Amino acid sequence: MNTRPLFIPVILGTVRQGRASENVAKFVFEQVKKREGVETEFVDIRELKFPGHDAGEQIKDTSFSQLCERADGLVLVVPEYNHGYPGMLKHVLDSNLKEYIHKAVGICGVSAGGFGATRMIENLLPVMRELGLVTIFWDGNFSGAQKLFDENGAIHDEETYVKRIDKFLGELVWMSKVLRYGRENISL
Amino acid sequence: MNTRPLFIPVILGTVRQGRASENVAKFVFEQVKKREGVETEFVDIRELKFPGHDAGEQIKDTSFSQLCERADGLVLVVPEYNHGYPGMLKHVLDSNLKEYIHKAVGICGVSAGGFGATRMIENLLPVMRELGLVTIFWDGNFSGAQKLFDENGAIHDEETYVKRIDKFLGELVWMSKVLRYGRENISL
Amino acid sequence: MNTRPLFIPVILGTVRQGRASENVAKFVFEQVKKREGVETEFVDIRELKFPGHDAGEQIKDTSFSQLCERADGLVLVVPEYNHGYPGMLKHVLDSNLKEYIHKAVGICGVSAGGFGATRMIENLLPVMRELGLVTIFWDGNFSGAQKLFDENGAIHDEETYVKRIDKFLGELVWMSKVLRYGRENISL
Amino acid sequence: MNTRPLFIPVILGTVRQGRASENVAKFVFEQVKKREGVETEFVDIRELKFPGHDAGEQIKDTSFSQLCERADGLVLVVPEYNHGYPGMLKHVLDSNLKEYIHKAVGICGVSAGGFGATRMIENLLPVMRELGLVTIFWDGNFSGAQKLFDENGAIHDEETYVKRIDKFLGELVWMSKVLRYGRENISL
Repeated sequence: MNTRPLFIPVILGTVRQGRASENVAKFVFEQVKKREGVETEFVDIRELKFPGHDAGEQIKDTSFSQLCERADGLVLVVPEYNHGYPGMLKHVLDSNLKEYIHKAVGICGVSAGGFGATRMIENLLPVMRELGLVTIFWDGNFSGAQKLFDENGAIHDEETYVKRIDKFLGELVWMSKVLRYGRENISL
Repeated sequence: MNTRPLFIPVILGTVRQGRASENVAKFVFEQVKKREGVETEFVDIRELKFPGHDAGEQIKDTSFSQLCERADGLVLVVPEYNHGYPGMLKHVLDSNLKEYIHKAVGICGVSAGGFGATRMIENLLPVMRELGLVTIFWDGNFSGAQKLFDENGAIHDEETYVKRIDKFLGELVWMSKVLRYGRENISL
Repeated sequence: MNTRPLFIPVILGTVRQGRASENVAKFVFEQVKKREGVETEFVDIRELKFPGHDAGEQIKDTSFSQLCERADGLVLVVPEYNHGYPGMLKHVLDSNLKEYIHKAVGICGVSAGGFGATRMIENLLPVMRELGLVTIFWDGNFSGAQKLFDENGAIHDEETYVKRIDKFLGELVWMSKVLRYGRENISL
Repeated sequence: MNTRPLFIPVILGTVRQGRASENVAKFVFEQVKKREGVETEFVDIRELKFPGHDAGEQIKDTSFSQLCERADGLVLVVPEYNHGYPGMLKHVLDSNLKEYIHKAVGICGVSAGGFGATRMIENLLPVMRELGLVTIFWDGNFSGAQKLFDENGAIHDEETYVKRIDKFLGELVWMSKVLRYGRENISL
């Protein structure tokens, strides 16, 4: 069996100024980095500078596509806007297709209110599936995100969140490993 | 009772090059124009030029907000991308909030394949609701949209589609009228 | 304008033994009863005894259909089971159709966990719409429902929940009134 | 690697009289039987006789639970009722939990109308995920199901549907195999 490290980038899925999701994404990124046998990278969709005048595979950003191509799994850190996903994240995700197929994804939802962005996660599920991604059945939920971190971006209740994200990443790593085995060894 | 004409703009909800939705939106726009007691306007979100570096109410486009403010109902013409809604449409919609409350919306789904973009419509429902819009229970469904029109943008099977959109608009006009009555006469 | 009281029954949407939703439904029912100009009734779907061997309009229960026919709005009190709605509630709801059209519905979600059954509410939205119901954009959310009530079924944090349900009912009454006006005065 | 045949039962997910889904389920069942290396069984939820007076794990039917426990993947054949899933199917599915974890599921949607029950499939996705099932990204779609079969239950356009279901089953078998490998060889 393949013993190469898994590659699981963390994608910060909003461009909005003052986004609380940035702290969440950095926190989750640190947790992924600690995992043995996992390599990661931090992707801020604000840095990708996708054009707003077209969409879909026509606006492929080579470096983003290559990153998705290389990935065995993805962590998406995503705020909830009006019970849906951020438009710019969808704009970016739609630019790839075959790059995602038979890979795992775990979603960390970020909300101002108390429900952990669960509605955004439900809203993303059909999109993930159509992209060929397998959404694991653990989520990260960051309710009241503006108050979860101190001014240096350190999470207040570290123990709780480290434990939860550990469980989430355990499942994501498992699914990433299993699907990689499938892609490499089991023919369709 | 208010006898002012209803204002129901038609919004073309994609910026993608070669969008089949443009023909659909123009066709639907013509049908709305024929309705007595209804005024309309054609809005192409490509023309709105929303910035991609921020999101939400921070990027309000005054003319679009005023249009939504004035509207009694909306027609959204929207293609299905990966079983979800186009990112740029969500980006635009998220820039308003109170402008939409207690108004009606009807959705025309546009798909390359055979299922009338029904999955995109389901995906939009929770967003519409959170924006305060009431989604009517008739949809416009334009399957196989690339082949529905001739090179001049005229719809091939005019009779069928005129009849269907007539039913759709009947319901949308009804709901727009009813909700306008409520906004103007019934206190919360 | 019609000054008859609105009729807004409260439907307890689960048959499960030990259901925490029963306390929630009774609490909400008391709040509806206090509203001036509103009549209500308590419906426990366990009492309806729908057969399990068929489904849809074939198993119409006359008294339930008449109640829906008479209603101007509905309150559904519904637990979340596996991120969806209870099967028996859907079984019951599917037995009517025209009885619901152009009426308002407000959903109170009940969950053992912390997210107020928001996922169940998202899951119900397309069904409500297809039934012709308008789902208002306020919900009741009862997280950790097993611990919200004392052994006599009295809610611990009464003030908070009375206030929230008051807002929810304000919106539901408004929408019920507006749609009744529409049904009675505005032709399609 | 495990060379035992995969076990992939076909579940007919409605109890309704006159259900067109029965023909679909039988047709799909025949296709599964032809697959080398796959064992199957036909499960009609009407035969399971789940009680309607309770729900969840309290009403476990031992034989159904054991079947799910043994399964490596599931085919669900499900009609769309009011844009959602049949209540009795949810009632049955909710009776298990750990039996489903890390197994594959493929959904065949059955509709009277023209959209292949896509809305029901979207509605099932969050439930499948919470049950621990991985929904593959091919579906079976049977539009206009009442007219797809002759009076003996033979499908009219056999070639088309055999080809489509073949693709669907190819993906389902792949995912079932991959996840079985994971369950048996990769620790969480």
